[in-house]
Amino acid sequence: VGSETSWLWQRTFTSFGVLFLQMGWGDLGAFGEPSKETPNLDQMAAEGMLFLDFYTANPLCSPSRAALLTGRLPVRNGFYTTNAHARNAYTPQDIVGGIQDSELLLPELLKKAGYINKIIGKWHLGHRPQFHPLKHGFDEWFGSPNCHFGPYDNRELPNIPVYRDWEMIGRYYDDFKIDLKTGEANLTQLYLQEALDFISKQQVSQQPFFLYWAIDATHAPVYASKQFLGTSQRGLYGDAVREIDDSIGKILRHLQQLGISENTFVFFTSDNGAALISAPKQGGSNGPFLCGKQTTFEGGMREPAIAWWPGHIPAGGVSHQLGNVMDLFTTSLSLAGLQPPSDRQIDGIDLLPVMLQGKLIDRPIFYYRGNEMMAVRVGLYKAHYWTWSNSWEEYGKGTDFCPGQNVSGVTTHTQEEHTYLPLLFHLGRDPGEKFPLRFASEEYQRAMERITGIVQQHKDTLVPGEPQLNVCDKAIMNWSPPGCEKLGKCLKAPESDPKKCSWPH
Amino acid sequence: VGSETSWLWQRTFTSFGVLFLQMGWGDLGAFGEPSKETPNLDQMAAEGMLFLDFYTANPLCSPSRAALLTGRLPVRNGFYTTNAHARNAYTPQDIVGGIQDSELLLPELLKKAGYINKIIGKWHLGHRPQFHPLKHGFDEWFGSPNCHFGPYDNRELPNIPVYRDWEMIGRYYDDFKIDLKTGEANLTQLYLQEALDFISKQQVSQQPFFLYWAIDATHAPVYASKQFLGTSQRGLYGDAVREIDDSIGKILRHLQQLGISENTFVFFTSDNGAALISAPKQGGSNGPFLCGKQTTFEGGMREPAIAWWPGHIPAGGVSHQLGNVMDLFTTSLSLAGLQPPSDRQIDGIDLLPVMLQGKLIDRPIFYYRGNEMMAVRVGLYKAHYWTWSNSWEEYGKGTDFCPGQNVSGVTTHTQEEHTYLPLLFHLGRDPGEKFPLRFASEEYQRAMERITGIVQQHKDTLVPGEPQLNVCDKAIMNWSPPGCEKLGKCLKAPESDPKKCSWPH
Repeated sequence: VGSETSWLWQRTFTSFGVLFLQMGWGDLGAFGEPSKETPNLDQMAAEGMLFLDFYTANPLCSPSRAALLTGRLPVRNGFYTTNAHARNAYTPQDIVGGIQDSELLLPELLKKAGYINKIIGKWHLGHRPQFHPLKHGFDEWFGSPNCHFGPYDNRELPNIPVYRDWEMIGRYYDDFKIDLKTGEANLTQLYLQEALDFISKQQVSQQPFFLYWAIDATHAPVYASKQFLGTSQRGLYGDAVREIDDSIGKILRHLQQLGISENTFVFFTSDNGAALISAPKQGGSNGPFLCGKQTTFEGGMREPAIAWWPGHIPAGGVSHQLGNVMDLFTTSLSLAGLQPPSDRQIDGIDLLPVMLQGKLIDRPIFYYRGNEMMAVRVGLYKAHYWTWSNSWEEYGKGTDFCPGQNVSGVTTHTQEEHTYLPLLFHLGRDPGEKFPLRFASEEYQRAMERITGIVQQHKDTLVPGEPQLNVCDKAIMNWSPPGCEKLGKCLKAPESDPKKCSWPH
Repeated sequence: VGSETSWLWQRTFTSFGVLFLQMGWGDLGAFGEPSKETPNLDQMAAEGMLFLDFYTANPLCSPSRAALLTGRLPVRNGFYTTNAHARNAYTPQDIVGGIQDSELLLPELLKKAGYINKIIGKWHLGHRPQFHPLKHGFDEWFGSPNCHFGPYDNRELPNIPVYRDWEMIGRYYDDFKIDLKTGEANLTQLYLQEALDFISKQQVSQQPFFLYWAIDATHAPVYASKQFLGTSQRGLYGDAVREIDDSIGKILRHLQQLGISENTFVFFTSDNGAALISAPKQGGSNGPFLCGKQTTFEGGMREPAIAWWPGHIPAGGVSHQLGNVMDLFTTSLSLAGLQPPSDRQIDGIDLLPVMLQGKLIDRPIFYYRGNEMMAVRVGLYKAHYWTWSNSWEEYGKGTDFCPGQNVSGVTTHTQEEHTYLPLLFHLGRDPGEKFPLRFASEEYQRAMERITGIVQQHKDTLVPGEPQLNVCDKAIMNWSPPGCEKLGKCLKAPESDPKKCSWPH
């Protein structure tokens, strides 16, 4: 059956959508959120396959998104910093770096197989002209290069532009309203309509497509449309989740109504764990897991994940495959009948045998923070080589990545090295990483023997990429994005003053 | 439709089973346990109704079980202590007290409507002759009066007897093996077979029945049968859960195969939250909730709950009704066409309108620890009038009811009084009780206004029962239970020496 199916999808076209959001493992009803307010995502899981052991490539957004699109760890594709040890970094609007031309992105490769590629939402791989998504394989774009922070005064700091394809069409707060008081913004509705229209257009032209729906309503400042405000038990964050859930339901139904659901592979996941610093009003839930976004504990990197492909992926399936967002790169290429590039290390694996034949593929998960491998998961064991939540200084200022949680010697506020004797957890018995195994136990010895070899091999063969997130410069912010002159929205940039970016976490 | 259905079940007989275990909210796949190893319970939920806001009456076993069978809070039915303030107490084998004749138990009432009643498993409402379950309405019993602690030497302490009906048929460890080294015991299989046989017998004689399946494999010392040992990702505790899950699947299928599933109402829930002191090897998961057994935080009292009644309760339903184990008393009477006693305060409510018509009934949940009302839930708000995890002394000895969790001013190690300014949480936005509302906020004022009235009324009308858990005496332990002489297993009791029981928590 496997090979027949395989033949089938290479003969007909297969499109795919990746739905990529800032949501925690515990935010979906299907994953045990007690308010159970995600009927559409729960239904998607019932019709598709739930991945319970799925990870993002980094506990922060930009590096995870770069990893998704390149199939490579951020330490390889350059989305990390060497300004300090083991620091998270991303792409604020003064970042000088971005995605390099030498990296091969999923849409670039799919293009060769005739795919039309669209990104809707936050790009986050650099905002300078050379990093523009349409220079990296996408045919269309509706969204912004950076987070929707603001409002700014357009003097000290420009507001973040919203692009349609090559040019900006306005700016957040100025032209695309987000009411920080009420949390009202209709952006998710705009992103939804873009998705539905794009899908309709490709269906009419019988064009295989790749849609990357990278919306950000659950990222602080959290927002929802008027009709969803106040509808959740969970406050504004829950309202945003409900709107996203509703939108995903509409996208899936649209595929079904157009009769292309059996030709469209859809994957739902998230770029990092829920941001507990924003809890309870603007932050989600990581269920039973430890800490959240910014950390390499399970709460920072274990993600909700659902694969949906009616007629191919068996309904109601559940997989314990250790998966990673980078696998979506390799899996998508496989669906398109393409091979991943052979001239570079690819970290993603092809999940089709997992989804179609129920196979389990043995592979490790690496947990990086900036330039440091903090931890590794092999089977049910997770070994921490370094532990850190954040510094005492940041913690003292009220920044807490683990509110209400404190595991002695684990959620440390100094960077603790354990490379000679890693802290080992069994995630089956102890998903919350609360009870390290005894170093002297036979189980510890046996597990670490295997893990040590895997880590050694990883480190021996690792060729780090040129770090892209080291230098910041106010002069290169979104002062005058392409198209600004037509709108009269070009702003005057200050003089160039490149500096080392400051990454406190 | 509601009234037609109501007519129907009063004309045909309706039987019910209550499945009552020591399991946490987060232990089921349907409630987000990451290993998702409970296919039968998940299926039960898919065919029935999931209660997400269901509570036990006490964070400890005996009082919860007394509340289930009397429909009354432990502070009313006597299952509490006044030896010290706000202490949990239960029925070890030196306890002098037990269930009083003045209490009306569910099986006593059902008997009048022609029901045959059986308890399988742990009784826990007192082990002295006057407290025997067959003196309180049950027709049959297979199980033990106390927890399966041991093995004891039968000199200082007798091993716990296992009863069949009126008489003991052996003792744990001596005759009913529990291997503490491997965790192997076939008790769940014995309890399962008892259940299947009892159901078959009632079906043959067309007899309505009440089955109280009160098994204890997930209570330390945790055990599982040989065929389940090592089958779970979660260790021995998971093995026990898998065996229980499998057994429940067999019970439900048995009802279906006998063609009586539409006449049998089945409810699954637990008597307290997962015991985190036994984690990770012998303790379960309370999902995203705070702390566990012994505490009045959500982890101690919020329980997994599933109602199942094919053809009556709509499949796949989810309810946010605030429910309590005491409701099973009132609901069962309603199913049998009986009224609850009118000469005493009953705390349970009839859940039939919730399950059959989707109604939501406004009612508070009271969280007691011994003689003190620690907290109350009204709607989505929970107000703590007292906070306490355990004493510094016990904590210093390594007893931790909240491992890895520490919410400043909330998980306190001294009994903290907040009666003048309760700590208030919004359980929708903050199910983990980590972020108390600001006292000065309008939301706090508004919510507390309503809660204060409810608490005032509760306290004004409360008539505490005679406390049953104050006095302990080694002389009354299970030395010579009825039937011991036939087996040659009577043991010599020491002299009576009644003392105040010591309740450290």
